[in-house]
Amino acid sequence: MGDGVASGPGVRAAVMRGPGRIGVERFPYPDVEPGAVLIKIEYSGICGTDKHTFRGETKQYAGTPHEIDIEFPLICGHENVGVVAETGGVVLDSEGVPLQLGDRIVPAANVACGSCVFCRGGFPYYACERLEDYGNSLNAARPPHLFGGWAEYLYLLPGTPLFRVPDELPSEIAVLTEEMSVTHGLDTARMLAADLHGPRVGETLVVYGVGPLGLCHLIKARLLGCGQIVAIDRLPHRLEVAGAFGASLLLNVTETDEAERVARVRELTGGLGADIVVDATGVATALPECLRLVRYGGTVVEAGAFVDMGPIGINPSADLCARNVSLLGIGGERSDFYLPTMRMLALNAKRLPFEQVVSHRMPLERAAEAIELAQGNDSMKVVFAPNTVPASA
Amino acid sequence: MGDGVASGPGVRAAVMRGPGRIGVERFPYPDVEPGAVLIKIEYSGICGTDKHTFRGETKQYAGTPHEIDIEFPLICGHENVGVVAETGGVVLDSEGVPLQLGDRIVPAANVACGSCVFCRGGFPYYACERLEDYGNSLNAARPPHLFGGWAEYLYLLPGTPLFRVPDELPSEIAVLTEEMSVTHGLDTARMLAADLHGPRVGETLVVYGVGPLGLCHLIKARLLGCGQIVAIDRLPHRLEVAGAFGASLLLNVTETDEAERVARVRELTGGLGADIVVDATGVATALPECLRLVRYGGTVVEAGAFVDMGPIGINPSADLCARNVSLLGIGGERSDFYLPTMRMLALNAKRLPFEQVVSHRMPLERAAEAIELAQGNDSMKVVFAPNTVPASA
Amino acid sequence: MGDGVASGPGVRAAVMRGPGRIGVERFPYPDVEPGAVLIKIEYSGICGTDKHTFRGETKQYAGTPHEIDIEFPLICGHENVGVVAETGGVVLDSEGVPLQLGDRIVPAANVACGSCVFCRGGFPYYACERLEDYGNSLNAARPPHLFGGWAEYLYLLPGTPLFRVPDELPSEIAVLTEEMSVTHGLDTARMLAADLHGPRVGETLVVYGVGPLGLCHLIKARLLGCGQIVAIDRLPHRLEVAGAFGASLLLNVTETDEAERVARVRELTGGLGADIVVDATGVATALPECLRLVRYGGTVVEAGAFVDMGPIGINPSADLCARNVSLLGIGGERSDFYLPTMRMLALNAKRLPFEQVVSHRMPLERAAEAIELAQGNDSMKVVFAPNTVPASA
Amino acid sequence: MGDGVASGPGVRAAVMRGPGRIGVERFPYPDVEPGAVLIKIEYSGICGTDKHTFRGETKQYAGTPHEIDIEFPLICGHENVGVVAETGGVVLDSEGVPLQLGDRIVPAANVACGSCVFCRGGFPYYACERLEDYGNSLNAARPPHLFGGWAEYLYLLPGTPLFRVPDELPSEIAVLTEEMSVTHGLDTARMLAADLHGPRVGETLVVYGVGPLGLCHLIKARLLGCGQIVAIDRLPHRLEVAGAFGASLLLNVTETDEAERVARVRELTGGLGADIVVDATGVATALPECLRLVRYGGTVVEAGAFVDMGPIGINPSADLCARNVSLLGIGGERSDFYLPTMRMLALNAKRLPFEQVVSHRMPLERAAEAIELAQGNDSMKVVFAPNTVPASA
Repeated sequence: MGDGVASGPGVRAAVMRGPGRIGVERFPYPDVEPGAVLIKIEYSGICGTDKHTFRGETKQYAGTPHEIDIEFPLICGHENVGVVAETGGVVLDSEGVPLQLGDRIVPAANVACGSCVFCRGGFPYYACERLEDYGNSLNAARPPHLFGGWAEYLYLLPGTPLFRVPDELPSEIAVLTEEMSVTHGLDTARMLAADLHGPRVGETLVVYGVGPLGLCHLIKARLLGCGQIVAIDRLPHRLEVAGAFGASLLLNVTETDEAERVARVRELTGGLGADIVVDATGVATALPECLRLVRYGGTVVEAGAFVDMGPIGINPSADLCARNVSLLGIGGERSDFYLPTMRMLALNAKRLPFEQVVSHRMPLERAAEAIELAQGNDSMKVVFAPNTVPASA
Repeated sequence: MGDGVASGPGVRAAVMRGPGRIGVERFPYPDVEPGAVLIKIEYSGICGTDKHTFRGETKQYAGTPHEIDIEFPLICGHENVGVVAETGGVVLDSEGVPLQLGDRIVPAANVACGSCVFCRGGFPYYACERLEDYGNSLNAARPPHLFGGWAEYLYLLPGTPLFRVPDELPSEIAVLTEEMSVTHGLDTARMLAADLHGPRVGETLVVYGVGPLGLCHLIKARLLGCGQIVAIDRLPHRLEVAGAFGASLLLNVTETDEAERVARVRELTGGLGADIVVDATGVATALPECLRLVRYGGTVVEAGAFVDMGPIGINPSADLCARNVSLLGIGGERSDFYLPTMRMLALNAKRLPFEQVVSHRMPLERAAEAIELAQGNDSMKVVFAPNTVPASA
Repeated sequence: MGDGVASGPGVRAAVMRGPGRIGVERFPYPDVEPGAVLIKIEYSGICGTDKHTFRGETKQYAGTPHEIDIEFPLICGHENVGVVAETGGVVLDSEGVPLQLGDRIVPAANVACGSCVFCRGGFPYYACERLEDYGNSLNAARPPHLFGGWAEYLYLLPGTPLFRVPDELPSEIAVLTEEMSVTHGLDTARMLAADLHGPRVGETLVVYGVGPLGLCHLIKARLLGCGQIVAIDRLPHRLEVAGAFGASLLLNVTETDEAERVARVRELTGGLGADIVVDATGVATALPECLRLVRYGGTVVEAGAFVDMGPIGINPSADLCARNVSLLGIGGERSDFYLPTMRMLALNAKRLPFEQVVSHRMPLERAAEAIELAQGNDSMKVVFAPNTVPASA
Repeated sequence: MGDGVASGPGVRAAVMRGPGRIGVERFPYPDVEPGAVLIKIEYSGICGTDKHTFRGETKQYAGTPHEIDIEFPLICGHENVGVVAETGGVVLDSEGVPLQLGDRIVPAANVACGSCVFCRGGFPYYACERLEDYGNSLNAARPPHLFGGWAEYLYLLPGTPLFRVPDELPSEIAVLTEEMSVTHGLDTARMLAADLHGPRVGETLVVYGVGPLGLCHLIKARLLGCGQIVAIDRLPHRLEVAGAFGASLLLNVTETDEAERVARVRELTGGLGADIVVDATGVATALPECLRLVRYGGTVVEAGAFVDMGPIGINPSADLCARNVSLLGIGGERSDFYLPTMRMLALNAKRLPFEQVVSHRMPLERAAEAIELAQGNDSMKVVFAPNTVPASA
């Protein structure tokens, strides 16, 4: 366990001891069991889930086989990029190639059991009934403790999928890989659109909520040949970044009402509404509006509701049947998207203003402040850089 | 217009003059314009929509470009099979073959405009912005009046897709073609399942509400290689018919509560829940339960809510995201499914107890009674047989 | 190793010592390592590949990472059904449920490595770069020797997917599971058809070569809602069985020429040609004809060419582009299809004349004769029943 | 008919009178029938098919319902962009909006009959059994003669799909729309890849033959998020342009042999081969090599063989089954891709060096020279600009 001491020997980590309580502690440098890997963290992102955990909203996957109430002490951090510091014997990357010390990798955010009906049936790993999540279900009480990326080192259990970062991909983009891999609802939505009529290009898109997850959807839409993109948010800076990434219509919810937003989106789309609407707000109340922003026969991707915020009212007739609308709930990220996503990002690293995504690189010592920052107007993605940014930065 | 006279010369039709008011009237035998077709009706079904119209619930497609408030006088009947009595010159069937007098056909239930963005873009015809519906938007005030199948003859406008009935397919099965073509949500649901993991066979299915539309989903599931099927309804006779068609678990909502139904479905599916759940109840309240009957990563098809029954509460986090559930609203039937559906039915006509589907063949003169029957326990599909069943039958 | 002695103690197996040389030998009853399973064989089928091996045509997967020249001594048999006789500790079935002694299972025909780029990337297991095949690459020289189903017991290595047979599914149908799982080209072909226009039912199908693999395609087509089916073969008995399973047009290649067959298929399909053509002949020369039997925009599934029979001529312009034809090469069977396939078969066990599929149950002692039988007119699927059919049967 | 006179009154057009014979003639300015549209040509491209026609290779769609032997006199030109000069009454664009004089449009290259089994069944329009092709089957003998884009004006028959060019899309990019709409094989190939394992991004691609059609595939791959791209050609300039558009490996067939090319592609792809290989060479001999460049489980798109160049040898076992390869023949362009393609191009007009695509703008008077140019090293896409480039340019 952590010693609660910020200085001295051992591996530094930002440890949550309870809601609102976070501070640097030190852990023994771990022995690495066979099949496991220890990486030295370059960057570890702050995710929306982490913010909820810090507020004490700790119920995840409610109603599923892997429902969990996150327990403290916890080292958060499941969006990671780092270099291999030690391996427990020969450990293979996702392509079956042995990892070498110094290799730069993005590890999967989860470890699947490999033996449940979903794992054995070829489902995406996030469907695993006994999924373990770095920085979430894997807490710091369990030795060797270092199960989150908000630390100098991250301990990766045997069986964790490990993805080599392409040389041309800067780590500040690679750290987005996990979040980019949650955007597969967009692929499914495009498939549904194609199933109804045909083309798989040029679709119009509304992204409701352009924090990091919404922005990842927007980036993907841009890189995969979608058409016009509308961004909706309440924070002006986020809308600005969305605009820099190619959103052509920016709507601030504090300056417009629903009727106006619906009208503006219809105006942009020849009166139809958007082909696809992504709800990445994390608040239940946006969903009914999303159902009205989408066109007849279109698809709404519900990607933000990872924490239970209660029910909202939906009209099965008017919202779904009469308008032939599909609604996709997204349950997590797909590990088989990590490598192709990194390759696509590598090829397009200079095309889009990726330098605007990671807005802050923070030391572990300023964790509470970093979490605060991640929720405000002045940031986009806030990451920890435990090994390069000095405590006083 | 109809003469309000039940006997004498002219074409007999059951005319709704307002909510709860229906009776036989006579119309002049029409001239057939170029491209149009007149068919002599063999069977014309009573659909859930018709029952709503008869109750005065006449708002359809709320919130869409073809939203309409059904107007009287109206000859209902959009599920039709009949023989060609006259054609306006050479008229081609769906395969481009000229129709001959005496050919047995199932006409599409709608006529698309051919010029809106959806028609021109290759969308299914039910997406047309100016869709005209036989027996619904096409009312009896407009000459030549005979725009519904509850009549001796049905007038089919130029441009109506017309499908030849395979010789081996009895008309009492062919009359199900339109309703069978509303079941495409099942195909999409299976595609979504395959997209997540692979197989396209053996899926477990819950059909919630096994009136004619639910039964059509059940029939399709049986004929297309699905696995175990659960039927839920409140009417014992409907459950019996569902059992005869292969449902292996029958649950009566008056004898079980939601918790018990969820438990029974999980028991049948190794604890998982059903791969696909079809809501064909027509009542908004079934949807939340459907979301709990479906397994992690499964799909709910909302196929019954063609009339606005108000909103219900859904939890975006627990019902959709945490369980990675997709929800598909179905907007109508696909005309490109008519012919392949009839061919598949023809090949399987003897395999399933189709004789249990059409439970009553009624004369036009007993229309009010027929509509009543269609809502009770003793019937499944009630059809009119205007040319063969005597008024006194 | 086998003792070359047909009687006495030990586990009996039919061992190929070289091309054309097969006889019963005895092996020690094996110790079962942790994670492994020993099953007592009920039935083990003779597959086309086995016939090739017996003729000395032993090159498989030419030009791929798992290319192999099959080595003797060999116990063939990869289409198996049996009951669990021993397990190495707790071993889970495909649904994550521990196996019990006496459980009836169908084991996968292969073991994937779990670590190559395909295994790690979520591909079907037959894409594994280091795939091991029971009865093929896994030969009898390697202890504990019993790696094929033509024996009293089959030894299943740790990691082999194991599928529980539904109670209602007779073993003589369950033994078809592996071969049924090679028919996924049909699913892909239907998806391609749907991608071009829409319906996923009622497709017309030609099965060229209705030996067991072709028949499995035909069965699948029937159970999954395809339309008219044409069977082509040179053996009258096989055509008869195809007819019993619902093929409506039977063409014997010794009585018709290509032009006539093309004409007959067009006649059946309104002049178009078949939506899907499956080549299950195992001879290269059928493919060009298949390309002419398929309609514009249709798909040819090449499923029989598992042994290299040399090249044939194809015209990229006339055969592919001008007619917009897709051609799918099938590389093996998908393990994720085993369980859903068995469930679908269980539900339909009485619908189709499955008793005509397994035509002969043979003892191991008559192996050479059984292989001979499997190639002639009088058989369909020939299986060994090592524990129930006496040597003298 | 044309008057064979290059100067004087009337509409100028480049008329092919036979193989190798082309010159400017004048035609009467046409009356525009109801539903038809006359556009003033901005650009009209020279396509590979046109080069074949000029050589007297005039057989198209061999073996299909719309097989044709192109007849002279002919005004070629089916890749067009122009402005509306006259309409026959109210004519709607693809979105159902009436066209105004001066609107800039890209017309479809074909007119479908609307009544054959494919047209009525919802297939892409290029499947029409009675398809008429501008600049090909529609020749100059039929009044009003102006059925090709190599002329000042193009006459568009009633029923031709007409697509509005987005304001931000320059005409020199819009002229690529038709050819870009032939690249749908790439979409299908990606769907097949996704069906096998999952991701729809980052696929590696080989484009064999980077003339305009190959380049369009490469552009699409770049804009739709593919990964590494390999270009193969014999002309250095074409490879250069491919490099400018993002191909990372350029292989000249005059400097490498097949074994070397296969080795280089495997080196780039971790030993696997390319996910997708597009054959856009127009020569039959490239196909076998394409089958060896693709990885296990990958897809080859045969997109260039629009003219019959005879058969080549393919090994069904080694090339297709053993390697689980799919092969897609592409039959034409999809009209439902025109508008979304233009919208995607408009959004990305500045991202890629589109100015390198149209290499030459020619006057009608230099038609023979232009066709010659289009086949040489120094050009990419050669277009006519009949109304803006002076005859002497």
